Amino acid sequence: MPPAALTLAMEVNQALPAFLLCSTLLVIKMYVVAIITGQVRLRKKAFANPEDALRHGGPQYCRSDPLVERCLRAHRNDMETIYPFLFLGLVYSFLGPNPSIARAHFLLFFLGRVAHTVAYLGELPAPSRSLAYTLAQLPCASMALQILWEAARRL
Amino acid sequence: MPPAALTLAMEVNQALPAFLLCSTLLVIKMYVVAIITGQVRLRKKAFANPEDALRHGGPQYCRSDPLVERCLRAHRNDMETIYPFLFLGLVYSFLGPNPSIARAHFLLFFLGRVAHTVAYLGELPAPSRSLAYTLAQLPCASMALQILWEAARRL
Amino acid sequence: MPPAALTLAMEVNQALPAFLLCSTLLVIKMYVVAIITGQVRLRKKAFANPEDALRHGGPQYCRSDPLVERCLRAHRNDMETIYPFLFLGLVYSFLGPNPSIARAHFLLFFLGRVAHTVAYLGELPAPSRSLAYTLAQLPCASMALQILWEAARRL
Repeated sequence: MPPAALTLAMEVNQALPAFLLCSTLLVIKMYVVAIITGQVRLRKKAFANPEDALRHGGPQYCRSDPLVERCLRAHRNDMETIYPFLFLGLVYSFLGPNPSIARAHFLLFFLGRVAHTVAYLGELPAPSRSLAYTLAQLPCASMALQILWEAARRL
Repeated sequence: MPPAALTLAMEVNQALPAFLLCSTLLVIKMYVVAIITGQVRLRKKAFANPEDALRHGGPQYCRSDPLVERCLRAHRNDMETIYPFLFLGLVYSFLGPNPSIARAHFLLFFLGRVAHTVAYLGELPAPSRSLAYTLAQLPCASMALQILWEAARRL
Repeated sequence: MPPAALTLAMEVNQALPAFLLCSTLLVIKMYVVAIITGQVRLRKKAFANPEDALRHGGPQYCRSDPLVERCLRAHRNDMETIYPFLFLGLVYSFLGPNPSIARAHFLLFFLGRVAHTVAYLGELPAPSRSLAYTLAQLPCASMALQILWEAARRL
């Protein structure tokens, strides 16, 4: 493998650029949720650590807050779903999938996860968040089954 | 790298199909823990978000529950251990390991993590859960040290 | 790809050994945080599960503890930052980056995350922990943008 193996692979593997785009945008989306959490902590004066509370007004601000908890749950749900996608999508991209079908998988996951974050942080009425979650899990289940199939028959 | 690079690699790399099988089955196992958590929330009427509680009976059901907390801890422990395995196992599989030894690593981790989930959700007496955890960490430590060794001597 | 594809790749890709070293050391660092958490639970007699408390003195030890919570927050922050690095760094290493610049990225992230753990567990005054966090996120943002750039132009 040459040092630019992925750059070269993107020229012949049409699934790969779509995967790298969707996955990296979702990682950046997670970074944005982390930044929002920090901003909400500052605005609501609700810190998890005494040393942070001391710097921002006093020890009474070491406390929990419903909106901070919501941000943390949104971020945790991202870790439960986006991290497996990084793995499954990378492996799936190198199993020679049909490029259009692969792109549809990545796009569905991407849109589902963006909708999930909007529904979570925007406190949209149920079941919008659950629907977005389920929608995004479908391509993951599909990719997982295809990887299992390819791996099991070569054991 | 051709679009089906991993499909081709599985023909000559006997460690790879075993890794992809174990890792993908464990990702699916994590998805199952997430589904169980959702079912327990519905059965115990214990929701983390007011909008979910409102849809399922009223705001009084936005509350915590010991069994839901247990599911969340099991899932979190999976994130602390299975995600690093996805990385370490993939890298290790391409360092040319002895196929039988590699398969033993993956199988030990797989069985340890399945036992961990069974012990956690089944509330088995201590130290069954800790033993399963430790058992699964052994092949991870072994793979990490082998990666370090190969990387450090090529710096 | 031969079974030792990464071993061979390390001979020609000078970014790769540095990435594998930094990433694997950080995974080991996370394992150490998990071990510290377990030790603090034993020392403070503060367990998350009734079955663990029963084994270590009685049901009254199923309780939370500020230092245990701190360890859990440090570990969670690692999951929010180190896991994306494993993905971004691996992809970036195969985009043919300048070896010196790539090594500077990995080293900055590595030092930032070690400093973050020291600041968190050592309860150093703010904003030392936040500074370490921000420092480590800079190379991640840089790698994410470079991956986006390479992927978007090949869509």
